[in-house]
Amino acid sequence: MGSPVHRVSLGDTWSRQMHPDIESERYMQSFDVERLTNILDGGAQNTALRRKVESIIHSYPEFSCKDNYFMTQNERYKAAMRRAFHIRLIARHLGWLEDGRELGYAYRALSGDVALNIHRVFLRALRSLGSEEQIAKWDPLCKNIQIIATYAQTELGHGTYLQGLETEATYDAATQEFVIHSPTLTATKWWPGDLGRSATHALVQAQLICSGARRGMHAFIVPIRSLQDHTPLPGIIVGDIGPKMDFDQTDNGFLQLNHVLPDGTYVKLGTAQSNYLPMVVVRVELLSGEVLPILQKACVIAMRYSVIRRQSRLRPSDPEAKVLDYQTQQQKLFPQLAISYAFHFLAVSLLEFFQHSYTAILNRDFSFLPELHALSTGMKAMMSEFCTQGAEMCRRACGGHGYSKLSGLPSLVTKLSASCTYEGENTVLYLQVARFLVKSYLQTQMSPGSTPQRSLPPSVAYLTAPDLARCPAQRAADFLCPELYTTAWAHVAARLIKDSVQHLQTLMQSGADQHEAWNQTTVIHLQAAKAHCYYVTVKGFTEALEKLENEPAIQQVLKRLCDLHAIHGILTNSGDFLHDAFLSGDQVDMARTAYLDLLRLIRKDAILLTDAFDFTDQCLNSALGCYDGNVYERLFQWAQKSPTNTQENPAYEEYIRPLLQSWKSKL
Amino acid sequence: MGSPVHRVSLGDTWSRQMHPDIESERYMQSFDVERLTNILDGGAQNTALRRKVESIIHSYPEFSCKDNYFMTQNERYKAAMRRAFHIRLIARHLGWLEDGRELGYAYRALSGDVALNIHRVFLRALRSLGSEEQIAKWDPLCKNIQIIATYAQTELGHGTYLQGLETEATYDAATQEFVIHSPTLTATKWWPGDLGRSATHALVQAQLICSGARRGMHAFIVPIRSLQDHTPLPGIIVGDIGPKMDFDQTDNGFLQLNHVLPDGTYVKLGTAQSNYLPMVVVRVELLSGEVLPILQKACVIAMRYSVIRRQSRLRPSDPEAKVLDYQTQQQKLFPQLAISYAFHFLAVSLLEFFQHSYTAILNRDFSFLPELHALSTGMKAMMSEFCTQGAEMCRRACGGHGYSKLSGLPSLVTKLSASCTYEGENTVLYLQVARFLVKSYLQTQMSPGSTPQRSLPPSVAYLTAPDLARCPAQRAADFLCPELYTTAWAHVAARLIKDSVQHLQTLMQSGADQHEAWNQTTVIHLQAAKAHCYYVTVKGFTEALEKLENEPAIQQVLKRLCDLHAIHGILTNSGDFLHDAFLSGDQVDMARTAYLDLLRLIRKDAILLTDAFDFTDQCLNSALGCYDGNVYERLFQWAQKSPTNTQENPAYEEYIRPLLQSWKSKL
Repeated sequence: MGSPVHRVSLGDTWSRQMHPDIESERYMQSFDVERLTNILDGGAQNTALRRKVESIIHSYPEFSCKDNYFMTQNERYKAAMRRAFHIRLIARHLGWLEDGRELGYAYRALSGDVALNIHRVFLRALRSLGSEEQIAKWDPLCKNIQIIATYAQTELGHGTYLQGLETEATYDAATQEFVIHSPTLTATKWWPGDLGRSATHALVQAQLICSGARRGMHAFIVPIRSLQDHTPLPGIIVGDIGPKMDFDQTDNGFLQLNHVLPDGTYVKLGTAQSNYLPMVVVRVELLSGEVLPILQKACVIAMRYSVIRRQSRLRPSDPEAKVLDYQTQQQKLFPQLAISYAFHFLAVSLLEFFQHSYTAILNRDFSFLPELHALSTGMKAMMSEFCTQGAEMCRRACGGHGYSKLSGLPSLVTKLSASCTYEGENTVLYLQVARFLVKSYLQTQMSPGSTPQRSLPPSVAYLTAPDLARCPAQRAADFLCPELYTTAWAHVAARLIKDSVQHLQTLMQSGADQHEAWNQTTVIHLQAAKAHCYYVTVKGFTEALEKLENEPAIQQVLKRLCDLHAIHGILTNSGDFLHDAFLSGDQVDMARTAYLDLLRLIRKDAILLTDAFDFTDQCLNSALGCYDGNVYERLFQWAQKSPTNTQENPAYEEYIRPLLQSWKSKL
Repeated sequence: MGSPVHRVSLGDTWSRQMHPDIESERYMQSFDVERLTNILDGGAQNTALRRKVESIIHSYPEFSCKDNYFMTQNERYKAAMRRAFHIRLIARHLGWLEDGRELGYAYRALSGDVALNIHRVFLRALRSLGSEEQIAKWDPLCKNIQIIATYAQTELGHGTYLQGLETEATYDAATQEFVIHSPTLTATKWWPGDLGRSATHALVQAQLICSGARRGMHAFIVPIRSLQDHTPLPGIIVGDIGPKMDFDQTDNGFLQLNHVLPDGTYVKLGTAQSNYLPMVVVRVELLSGEVLPILQKACVIAMRYSVIRRQSRLRPSDPEAKVLDYQTQQQKLFPQLAISYAFHFLAVSLLEFFQHSYTAILNRDFSFLPELHALSTGMKAMMSEFCTQGAEMCRRACGGHGYSKLSGLPSLVTKLSASCTYEGENTVLYLQVARFLVKSYLQTQMSPGSTPQRSLPPSVAYLTAPDLARCPAQRAADFLCPELYTTAWAHVAARLIKDSVQHLQTLMQSGADQHEAWNQTTVIHLQAAKAHCYYVTVKGFTEALEKLENEPAIQQVLKRLCDLHAIHGILTNSGDFLHDAFLSGDQVDMARTAYLDLLRLIRKDAILLTDAFDFTDQCLNSALGCYDGNVYERLFQWAQKSPTNTQENPAYEEYIRPLLQSWKSKL
């Protein structure tokens, strides 16, 4: 058994004693949990460094998140700013580099509950997009926090469609200056993080107007608050957009500009190709650093609670059963666990692919870009969608206690919900994937007889692969074959893509113009894009497993999750597989048998597989999810700290007492 | 055109002017919206009465909910208590009866955001379950609020499984008294509404122990707080369970009892049969009064916002399009609208059926009870699940602004989320339906040659109906036939039930005991129960349509929603229809064509169909959803009222200023 010392970290009364119902789950280990943690961290040395950083972070009371659930929006904001302040002190003191692993681990330990995150994004954008001169001027100002910067793109009335942004930057030839202006209410910048109450400067996206002609979107650095006293500068109306579903710690803001001068010249954005890659890397890092860990935490919490919680009896003579022993509870949680691993390996392989593409781009080979775009947008849409759905499933699997904020689950779910919209709304992104798929498919049709396969990107190579008309499975166990289910997913994705193209072409042949035809087939395109993305996750998971041949025990346990992920997807979308009789009804039943068997097999490793994510108790911040399993003690004690218990009853004198005593006046 | 005066009710600057983009949606009316509202209300006189009550409620500032989104838990609780206080004054003043329509409409207008709701539940339970003597004693105390009562069943460690409750009521033969006691931490009562800070008495569910023998659950009225000064009585530890995902206004509480004496004798619960019906009626009223309206509101808000929001262009030469004109947006919203209507009609018909059963029960005919139970549990599980999912879909369909609490959508979603757990966890409920289905199916198999059909309850009569092996549809339009799709749903439900029974029997024949066999097939039973419930909604909707033959225009527009509901379900679960080749792949494609056509047809009536729900602006409490469509103006103005804008920046002096000026010290 690996030492769990690093995970039992709350140091409260209960941490010293494991609950026997969770201890028994860890008694027999079919694989080395510590080794799996190392694999997830990308090496044992990373695990060690991460834990060192975590123990530093957890040793400072300034970083504590334990009162989060009791705080108002103002208090959350202040606490996040306190963390932003102290992390800079500590980073300087310990020599942590701006882009070093330590700082990354520190943010992980704090669950991103830190202010000035957009300031960091701004700094990265500046470094990759700015001119040398601009970097020389702004980089040190940002780095030393002489200014606090934000990135202001989205407007009250405009989001995804950049061309629709209304903010104007008019070039005045007489003064040789740009004037930035919000011509309408809907042009108000809305949502930028750190803008509401913190930022002194904003990188403002605006329509450039020269001699009356619109020249498209450009970005300008605009000073918005005084560096002396932080008051808004003349012509600036700025504030907070108010309460949100979560992200109380972030001051998402609004900004109206009344004929304001930017500071210095505008930031000339480079070509699409050269700018694109850093954005993609940021997106994937965001997914793997901030979106996926939330689902993983939800899995840890729900799984641990499900071996402590006992409810009803499997047999009348038995004691009450752990809820995780119910098949329906396994069906709720294990697919989410499988997705947690599937997405981890997918993110790792995509980042490798992006590094590879980056080298190509430096050599002015831009051929990877369409696939890069399709993979990163598809992955963003799918990960945010599945993680949100999965975390909510975990939350509900905890019954009533999953509704208490003290479980940690509500804030995990509501944080994830945002990810379905920010950084590109998911439907829009899936449809971008669909356009790539349509183009790829048309490419396979363009040159009959020639070899168009050669130029198809790897993720859609299946479009030209030899296709089976029928799945060869003859018994349930056949579905535990990665080649079988990868092929099945490829078959379905290819069929749906072909189907979507045919619908598009039929509509156009019957007289619809291409735009109308596209809109009238988007529901079909969405379906194809989702099947393609699912294929990518299955394929990625199987490839990751192949690399674990030197770790047979871990490979075996992860293969069960991979099988479960693939088969769960087949069962959830069985209509797509039955549609052209690729699978028969009998084969779907075989897949279901294999699926139910997998639930039973995964059951015994379930706690260990969540332990391997190696979240500290502080980082989970959940009364239900602590390593030691002392759920009820913590829930009871944490509730006592609520302001509803520590403050006087605000309604007693005014309403309750008069209500209870009003009968006297009626006598 | 009907007069919309009652709906434009905020009376703010913008209400006087309709946004042209929403006005144009109401210009051509293919049906009489006011008439549809009357139908939903159950008659024009109800509509009139409801509006009268609404205008009374909205005229008192004490009832305003407009600052809800800016309040802490303590403030929300106080405001809800204020409403509870004033509604009693008004009801007394205007002579509204305890169970009259007026009070029901008042609670609807307040979105249930009122304290002491469990006190009302307690009163109803007392009246239907108590002895005459008990009613004589407690009814006036409750009615005059000389006491505030709650119902304490759920414990920290125990929920759905009543037998597992640990609270003990020991009968002391010497003193002839009961002693109520919480023997463990997990026996702490947890979750009861009004308990945390308000209740003076609790109806406590406890294990009765007589002479050392356990006699099952009984309920005892226990005084918990002083009627003089509201402090907890000796032996009582009581408080609030802290922050939750929503329901800030309710003081869900905890309660530990240390050898406490109840007040008077225990409440002897009657037989299962006689107690059951009132519970069922409460459950259905809860669904139609508190769960369904939340989905309807989410539909109203999302639909109205979707004709104001413009994004991207359908054609390069067009202006930006209303997002509701995108097929993908229609696919997000219209199925939710269809469900809103389907569940409305289902709830109405179920309540009628319950009244009918009630008469039978009074005549000591209990034969309806199993079906009654299956229908009410199935309906609870399905409505809470679909409403939650639907409201979240509506929320996300509003993009970033759907994440702002000011849209109203986050609180609608988080309120609905609770309904999946309270009043019976959904999975447990679906499995109760499944047990009914298994029994019904076995009944059809028991007496070959005889006529078991006669005794099958109507909702499962399809189990013995002549079954088609293949769907006869030959073109898309065939799917617009209620008989065709009702039959299709019956076929699938019957097949899945049969399949689940066969799996159960196979396992038992291979040696599993019945409990193990049940647990190992619950995933399959769930699927069957869900298909059955879907069938019930489709069937109920079609029957409601038949009754609208005198309203051809309304019947036509609602039939489209009914068709959409049935077909959307077929497409979402196409695997179940393709599995035994009841539908062919070609027929699924026809169904999809019919579905996409319906989206287009429903589009032009979408705003009117949501207007017909007739929610006032105050009741919607949404910056995005007001009748006049002035979305951005309201969002901007409401944000200004946020404490993040009205209070000083709490982080400036302590963190921001030192951060911005620390570079000076480095010089």
